Amino acid sequence: MKILNNPSKALWSDLTKRPTLKKTTLRETVETVFRDVERNGDAAVLKYASLFDELKGERLRVKSETISSAKEKLAPELIDAIKQAEANIKKFHKSQTVNSKPVETSPGVVCWQETRSIDRVGLYIPGGTAPLFSTLLMLGVPAKLAGCDKIVICTPASSESEISPAILYTAWYLGIDEIYMLGGMQAIAAMTYGTDQIPQVDKIFGPGNQFVTAAKQYALQQGVAIDMPAGPSEVLIIADDKANPGFVAADLLAQAEHGGDSQVVLLCQSDNFADEVKLQLNSQKENLTRENVIDKALENTLIIAFDSIRDQIAFSNAYAPEHLIINTENTSEILPLIQSAGSVFIGPYSPESVGDYASGTNHTLPTNGAARAYSGVNLQSFQKTISFQELTYEGIQNLGPSVMVMADAEGLDAHKNAVEIRLSDNGN
Amino acid sequence: MKILNNPSKALWSDLTKRPTLKKTTLRETVETVFRDVERNGDAAVLKYASLFDELKGERLRVKSETISSAKEKLAPELIDAIKQAEANIKKFHKSQTVNSKPVETSPGVVCWQETRSIDRVGLYIPGGTAPLFSTLLMLGVPAKLAGCDKIVICTPASSESEISPAILYTAWYLGIDEIYMLGGMQAIAAMTYGTDQIPQVDKIFGPGNQFVTAAKQYALQQGVAIDMPAGPSEVLIIADDKANPGFVAADLLAQAEHGGDSQVVLLCQSDNFADEVKLQLNSQKENLTRENVIDKALENTLIIAFDSIRDQIAFSNAYAPEHLIINTENTSEILPLIQSAGSVFIGPYSPESVGDYASGTNHTLPTNGAARAYSGVNLQSFQKTISFQELTYEGIQNLGPSVMVMADAEGLDAHKNAVEIRLSDNGN
Repeated sequence: MKILNNPSKALWSDLTKRPTLKKTTLRETVETVFRDVERNGDAAVLKYASLFDELKGERLRVKSETISSAKEKLAPELIDAIKQAEANIKKFHKSQTVNSKPVETSPGVVCWQETRSIDRVGLYIPGGTAPLFSTLLMLGVPAKLAGCDKIVICTPASSESEISPAILYTAWYLGIDEIYMLGGMQAIAAMTYGTDQIPQVDKIFGPGNQFVTAAKQYALQQGVAIDMPAGPSEVLIIADDKANPGFVAADLLAQAEHGGDSQVVLLCQSDNFADEVKLQLNSQKENLTRENVIDKALENTLIIAFDSIRDQIAFSNAYAPEHLIINTENTSEILPLIQSAGSVFIGPYSPESVGDYASGTNHTLPTNGAARAYSGVNLQSFQKTISFQELTYEGIQNLGPSVMVMADAEGLDAHKNAVEIRLSDNGN
Repeated sequence: MKILNNPSKALWSDLTKRPTLKKTTLRETVETVFRDVERNGDAAVLKYASLFDELKGERLRVKSETISSAKEKLAPELIDAIKQAEANIKKFHKSQTVNSKPVETSPGVVCWQETRSIDRVGLYIPGGTAPLFSTLLMLGVPAKLAGCDKIVICTPASSESEISPAILYTAWYLGIDEIYMLGGMQAIAAMTYGTDQIPQVDKIFGPGNQFVTAAKQYALQQGVAIDMPAGPSEVLIIADDKANPGFVAADLLAQAEHGGDSQVVLLCQSDNFADEVKLQLNSQKENLTRENVIDKALENTLIIAFDSIRDQIAFSNAYAPEHLIINTENTSEILPLIQSAGSVFIGPYSPESVGDYASGTNHTLPTNGAARAYSGVNLQSFQKTISFQELTYEGIQNLGPSVMVMADAEGLDAHKNAVEIRLSDNGN
């Protein structure tokens, strides 16, 4: 843990840097898998699935009766919780619908935008230590709301070739029936090119380990869109001395348990407060099961005491955290000054955990400073915008001469000709 | 030119494919330039600029008096045309402002989105045969509207180390004063890492040759956002037999003059109409200066006669063209069925040329089928969305139990703890 007091601005650039991830070594592996899948389809997919994930059998798609019967394996309170989360996520993402109106930019020239769903989307849901049905909620709800024609889930099976019932139930509840037992690079490659068993998609969403992340980057270069670049999860907390140090420590710990590479930052206003948080960290973590992971993440944890709230905000903007918790008084004065963050949690009763699961906001968010230029996943992530324009005869008569002058200046006389031939028309 | 009549759907997948671009050979060159610029800054930048662009001198930034005096070198009608285009583009992009309202997803749980400008954006404006001041309009207008803090233009200088006065004037008129005489891979690398002379940016926009395109892909992997993947420009025209074959031919020629690799597709309803268009192509192109480029592009031109308008639409959606011209009657029945396209031009008096310059829509659009998943540049391209949530004490009491159940099911007990510690608080 690194604790600093009012570090000079010259140091900020280093302090806001995340650890560099090695990329080059992965690229060759990813390329090998992609080329193989492109050439050999399911044969290659099954080979890697059995090699990396110990997949048994050759049928990748989960049977519909397996999906519909998953409910029986879940506790009723988990079913209720999933339903409450789904309702909130749906309500918030539905509110993101954009209705744009036509604009007459010049007489007889009308322009507008319309949104359309992306036809085919692939949702990658990691397996591994925990079944992330929450990620399926975050991706599946907006995909359904957007009206995507084909929604494909790829998720690695356990060594018994099974998928977690929580994931199966969530898919069933959302009305998604295309689930494939397939993870890792081979899943991303299969959705990129399409195979006999796995459909090709237009955009791939979802988190994953470093191999999946590298595979999504590679898919991007093959013409498939992806949700956003991914890195280890992050939280930055802005707290004042009135904040409850126990709440602050609990939020730091929640982020730390995601993995040893989690980025955990606290900006407070005094060394005393930092000390109180440290005490709370130590006492709370004793009762947590992932203590080893947490200890590893806390090694890199950064606590900075700034005298001024302005510096806290400026540092946070420079850092551009995935999750930003503002646990201070007068949050309404702070919010307009927040320039870069994925999702913001306001006040003492808004822990990151609520956004991870059920408040309604999306938890698929930009990491590693990407919040400077990227938004988190929202309804628009499953849509694209098309622009339209319609000119009347009057419209082209009015606008045409300007277009001709500009086309001429750019040396494009066929562009000019396309206007000229219409101007010499008599409009009937 | 390839002319087909009602090709079977089995052939569509091949017919909608664009020629594959070689990428691997460029990657090494790009990597060399980026590593050199990252390590050696301006020394490397200047070396490549003098090598590739014959840049003289070492000062890259254009002096402010050079920018402000550019107006004197432009014809008054070009100045007026630029002003009309700017007004239309501004009007349409301003209408894209999204105002989202807070939503109470559960009692005491309020979520909303806010947009923020991307702080630092780089606009790459190609030089080469024509000075593309229209591209500067398309990128500069929304960048200013979004309120981006730092707007940087990179554009290659001529062999006399000069920038076209039309570009300088446009920048001046838009209020952008940071213009650098720098093009190619070295410009993209410089904006990616920042050098003493060139500022680092968060997102890079703009078209370019294959080297610039490859450099932007590389920049993306270095953590800089880009507008979209780029390929050769495209038009697809849907015409019925009532359309004016002269207008259709003029639109095909306008696309063809962009480059020998331009993609030009016509979907009509009869072989007769196709023949009439061919006659018009031959007669019109004789008067055009870029006849060689046009001839090259026309070699790959595809004309398909479909009996049914449904097939025309389905083929167009499968192709997902950058520009789609719908030159038919009853366009209002067709528009809702258009699923994938960058920008759509409706009716006889809406040539693509008007959108390239002045109707108000953006001309930076997805090519190579990317319109299946990507939108063209619009106001949102210069913004990001942040999500916010605020829970009251009642809110966490209401939502907390569900969050705890789900965190438990995902094996994340520090997440559970962050809620539990608040639930046991007395709310004062």
